Amino acid sequence: MPFGGGGEMQKTAWLAALLLVLSAVSAPAGTLTEADVKRTGEASKRILAEALRTGRTHALLKDLCKTAPRRLSGSEGMAKAEAWAERALKDIGLENVRLEACKVPHWERGSVAELACLAPVPDTKLPILAIGGSVATPGDGLTAEVVEVKSFDELHAKADRVKGRIVFFNRPMDATLPDTFAAYGGAADQRVRGALEAAKVGAVAVVVRSLTTLLDDIPHTGTLFYAAAVKRIPAVAVSTLGAERLAALLAGGKTVKLRMRLDCRWHEDAPAHNVVGELRGTSRPDEILVVGGHLDSWDVGEGAHDDGAGCCQSIAALALLKTLNLRPKRTIRVVLFANEENGSRGGRGYVRTHAAELKHHVLALESDRGGFTPRGFATNAGPAALEILRALAAPLRSAGIEYVRPGGGGADISHMAKFGVVLVGYVPDSQRYFDLHHSARDTIETVNERELELGTAVIASLLYGVADMEKTLPRNDAQAR
Amino acid sequence: MPFGGGGEMQKTAWLAALLLVLSAVSAPAGTLTEADVKRTGEASKRILAEALRTGRTHALLKDLCKTAPRRLSGSEGMAKAEAWAERALKDIGLENVRLEACKVPHWERGSVAELACLAPVPDTKLPILAIGGSVATPGDGLTAEVVEVKSFDELHAKADRVKGRIVFFNRPMDATLPDTFAAYGGAADQRVRGALEAAKVGAVAVVVRSLTTLLDDIPHTGTLFYAAAVKRIPAVAVSTLGAERLAALLAGGKTVKLRMRLDCRWHEDAPAHNVVGELRGTSRPDEILVVGGHLDSWDVGEGAHDDGAGCCQSIAALALLKTLNLRPKRTIRVVLFANEENGSRGGRGYVRTHAAELKHHVLALESDRGGFTPRGFATNAGPAALEILRALAAPLRSAGIEYVRPGGGGADISHMAKFGVVLVGYVPDSQRYFDLHHSARDTIETVNERELELGTAVIASLLYGVADMEKTLPRNDAQAR
Repeated sequence: MPFGGGGEMQKTAWLAALLLVLSAVSAPAGTLTEADVKRTGEASKRILAEALRTGRTHALLKDLCKTAPRRLSGSEGMAKAEAWAERALKDIGLENVRLEACKVPHWERGSVAELACLAPVPDTKLPILAIGGSVATPGDGLTAEVVEVKSFDELHAKADRVKGRIVFFNRPMDATLPDTFAAYGGAADQRVRGALEAAKVGAVAVVVRSLTTLLDDIPHTGTLFYAAAVKRIPAVAVSTLGAERLAALLAGGKTVKLRMRLDCRWHEDAPAHNVVGELRGTSRPDEILVVGGHLDSWDVGEGAHDDGAGCCQSIAALALLKTLNLRPKRTIRVVLFANEENGSRGGRGYVRTHAAELKHHVLALESDRGGFTPRGFATNAGPAALEILRALAAPLRSAGIEYVRPGGGGADISHMAKFGVVLVGYVPDSQRYFDLHHSARDTIETVNERELELGTAVIASLLYGVADMEKTLPRNDAQAR
Repeated sequence: MPFGGGGEMQKTAWLAALLLVLSAVSAPAGTLTEADVKRTGEASKRILAEALRTGRTHALLKDLCKTAPRRLSGSEGMAKAEAWAERALKDIGLENVRLEACKVPHWERGSVAELACLAPVPDTKLPILAIGGSVATPGDGLTAEVVEVKSFDELHAKADRVKGRIVFFNRPMDATLPDTFAAYGGAADQRVRGALEAAKVGAVAVVVRSLTTLLDDIPHTGTLFYAAAVKRIPAVAVSTLGAERLAALLAGGKTVKLRMRLDCRWHEDAPAHNVVGELRGTSRPDEILVVGGHLDSWDVGEGAHDDGAGCCQSIAALALLKTLNLRPKRTIRVVLFANEENGSRGGRGYVRTHAAELKHHVLALESDRGGFTPRGFATNAGPAALEILRALAAPLRSAGIEYVRPGGGGADISHMAKFGVVLVGYVPDSQRYFDLHHSARDTIETVNERELELGTAVIASLLYGVADMEKTLPRNDAQAR
């Protein structure tokens, strides 16, 4: 709440309250009716109770994690996951279950990943993972001195010392930010563009501090970008404790020499599929809501939170609506996207395949921030639609939904934004996510059943509310309120 | 939000907004000044960042859990915990660190806890724990047929069949309630009063379904009440899967015979201590705020969430204020209560020891709902104080504090209510608590660092805000607003 200077507390309290009103419910509710609100409220109660009593999200996710862990695009794990997903959508009785083809990147980690300190302390191994997409080192490895930097600015300031060296990007995530996604966003450039920027100034490889606020020996992978005109150099993520050890060795300007070995490989793009199924609408079946997550995951751990959780919540949300016989007026389509981690080819493929239909897409909702306890929804909706979403989400307060606020929907659905589709991202609590993200720790054992099912319930409720409105939720390109 | 029938959405939205205003900030802010709000807002930012950067709550809790697990009153673990706590309060530089004596119940679980099915399936063992306070069985055990009930009403309806039998209380927690404490509250009567009620109608022992929504083989203990005039009969908690197996054996009215063996023992009340320390106020040191948790725990697991977390958050909150040089006008006193789990003797002892001082107690805050991600505060504050607490907690929104609402403060501080003290309970997310509560699973490994430190930060911020107000927070027995 904003409290200005001067004036009495009473005045500022009322002012704050007024701002609250303005931000929460300033506009008339556009196309939402009393009956819509009542119907959604009643449905939400039933959905919430059913999810907590008989929810099947956790069982689905456990099955996915054990059947098809390590679902990187092009891998055997991903092929198993597609088959699993098709079966799962058919098992809950969805209509029009189908696989929609797209091409995806195909990179393999290989079996060698080694980072050893040769000097000053001989043969100290540091815990690493190749960053996804990295090229291999020469077969017998690559040896060079290390230059530590905290930013691209510092990299460029030290450009004359970098040539022929390994660049060590060691800027930690800012643990003081309560929103861990903000902290991640403030540090991820090192992993994503570190190899590219370092190669531009002549580096031979990069070592990047893992993106987590934990201090431990578990490395976290993720994707990187190369550019056509710039030499592709090998890139690894070192555990945070490994990064601390390396920084300690370098302290005071000491010379540290590292040997890196990676045998990663790139292949031709591979065939893959978005897995799709529908709960067809009763009276307006051609108006479509999408709900989904991405089926691919990194090739370590089980991709339980990232993003098995979102996939299984999407499936289970429709299963809940079917169980409760809550078939809405509009069609809800579940889309399990083929590729997000290293390419977003699933989301791109979807808008290509469904180009003609996108003008009838009312809303797309993604869950891709982990299977944790609910906090809210983020959306790109314009003012009228935002107000409606807030009214429909109001009954979800007891399930932990505190807000519907402006923000991003999710990487897979982001490609629909320019077609006027309202995007919604499910936002669970963020505190634990980066303990697990892109690491061997992202397994079913870290997923709490009730938290996961509550997420399914709030997703199902909001979807139902929008899909069953008497009038249609205003799209972002609509002129009318 | 309440949406009445009739009228337009626009109207109800404004009405809802008005209600929101009325409930959030209806009254003038009483004794809170602009300067108070500004100072607390600035302090909150510093506290939050410092907690997330250098917070020591998790390290303290790990140390407590490994030094003194199984801290049941009268045990060696509790003696170690008292020494640990005194050291911890001195280490962070608190003033007036002292041990305040009280007497506590002394019960020991013993080494034998066995529940075996003799018929129809011979020798099937069921996972149990003695309920805390239970008497022993005869040395060679107790054998009887079983009668299953779901409630005391059903127990009394079946009174003629209960005599000489073992009563099996098998009403599950209501998993459909989003608030797990409400679900616990709706089932705990079976554990607390089951033995007493069953003995009144002639039962020889009770088996109670464990209080968790998980289906697994981990039993959960807790306390029970006996009454002087009623025979004390043995009582065990069976795992939820054990309860399901037992119910399946009984299905269709089949006869099931169980043998129970327990060698629990009661001793004379033992000496124990509330462990106390202070951050003395600068200008109003005689006005006191209490912050605390209970140091005792059940004798299984490590009492990490229940309530090592609350103790360590209380200590670490004061450590944060000291680190940041935020010494408020009033005294903040940390109290680590000696006994909550089986007697609340710590809380009773505190009000006895400090009777003369209670009229100068401004507020007491307890953390005893686990070390999970923040959600809000519950309080018994009157309208004026409630409004002030809401204004002071407003800057904690980014840390997850959604509300300050009417509710209970905590068992240990509840004894201060009748003296007019404003009580506040810290409310973290409740989804995971009863997976662990009173079981072997309640260990440090289930505690997330960031979640725990965020709790410390919001507690420290609210305490600082109230302790440093220019005028004093209205007590519940104050006439003035």
